[in-house]
Amino acid sequence: MEPSNLVWSQPLIGATERSRLLDQRGGLVWFTGLPGAGKSTIAAAVEADLHGRGHATYLLDGDNLRHGLCSDLGFSAEDRRENLRRVAEVAALMVDAGLFVMAAFVSPSAEDRARVAGRLGDDHWLEVHVATPLEVCEGRDPKGHYAKARRGDLTSFTGVSAPYEAPAAPDLRIDTVALHPAQAAEAVVAVMAARGWLSLGGETEPD
Amino acid sequence: MEPSNLVWSQPLIGATERSRLLDQRGGLVWFTGLPGAGKSTIAAAVEADLHGRGHATYLLDGDNLRHGLCSDLGFSAEDRRENLRRVAEVAALMVDAGLFVMAAFVSPSAEDRARVAGRLGDDHWLEVHVATPLEVCEGRDPKGHYAKARRGDLTSFTGVSAPYEAPAAPDLRIDTVALHPAQAAEAVVAVMAARGWLSLGGETEPD
Repeated sequence: MEPSNLVWSQPLIGATERSRLLDQRGGLVWFTGLPGAGKSTIAAAVEADLHGRGHATYLLDGDNLRHGLCSDLGFSAEDRRENLRRVAEVAALMVDAGLFVMAAFVSPSAEDRARVAGRLGDDHWLEVHVATPLEVCEGRDPKGHYAKARRGDLTSFTGVSAPYEAPAAPDLRIDTVALHPAQAAEAVVAVMAARGWLSLGGETEPD
Repeated sequence: MEPSNLVWSQPLIGATERSRLLDQRGGLVWFTGLPGAGKSTIAAAVEADLHGRGHATYLLDGDNLRHGLCSDLGFSAEDRRENLRRVAEVAALMVDAGLFVMAAFVSPSAEDRARVAGRLGDDHWLEVHVATPLEVCEGRDPKGHYAKARRGDLTSFTGVSAPYEAPAAPDLRIDTVALHPAQAAEAVVAVMAARGWLSLGGETEPD
């Protein structure tokens, strides 16, 4: 029999096998909050914490999505929805690959966030509300966007001229005025462990 | 000083750190060839081989892309180009995460493939031509697409009513008539090792 005619039963590698190899159960941690709330900072701190424990991670945010996969999209409601749809699809593939994915997006619409959650499923989704008050975010204004929005140079800016729908029941709500990013990260990792995504017992490496 | 006013210098986790943790240098292996050439079969065999050696992997193909991230796209030349653009962007993110990504797509246009290669960069891209002859692919016709295309029920079908531009200088050309998928996979892994993406020395686990 020629090789080309063989029916070859290959050892299929699926999510279970990849998860076993990486010794973790992949999942998506979604950080939502106002512009300047500290979402990316805390997400990066969570990634650093997990990495230090030997876990395979990735961070998705506007910086690596808006210039690449979503470079064809603007900021209309429709484009924002498509942006989050693509983020959800990429995250789902990465979670299927076994990774812990941190995603930091303003994501002001509760409906849009629910759609992302539905795509991932309860077992692979955690919602973290980075609940920095508007006045604190505006006081920081690291990119000068709030000032521009107040002057009317930026339209549909969440918190100023567009609504932010805070999550009613997030898995974790973080008060960034009281907590240092590393402390916030610890809280997130604790919730992940409580969900059975990883084990904390004695795995922490000394830094 | 309040935590909210701290400038926090976080330990940044980048591609280098992730690559070190996974003990591999992420990269994309692109499988191109006619419909029915065996691209997905060989890509899955490569994934199984790498997984058996302890490597973190993922397989991208029409099955997990066309129904999700690219579900809004059809098969016009423009949509095919956008499809491959998104595949390239997702693969680039996964490679940045440190994974070995296998991508199996007909990708008949040399220009489109060159665009994907350019997005990844020479250090993270390998092109494999699954060079099964048209008559063999058509003889297999596992999905009945060739028959449909010959009857005119499928238009713009690569190999029948649309051109396939074979790679002029692929990193590897596989003769699937002579090679069993597992042998083809070995050849691909050998090229990956030759490129320094992984080490073969004594790492192979007995099956």
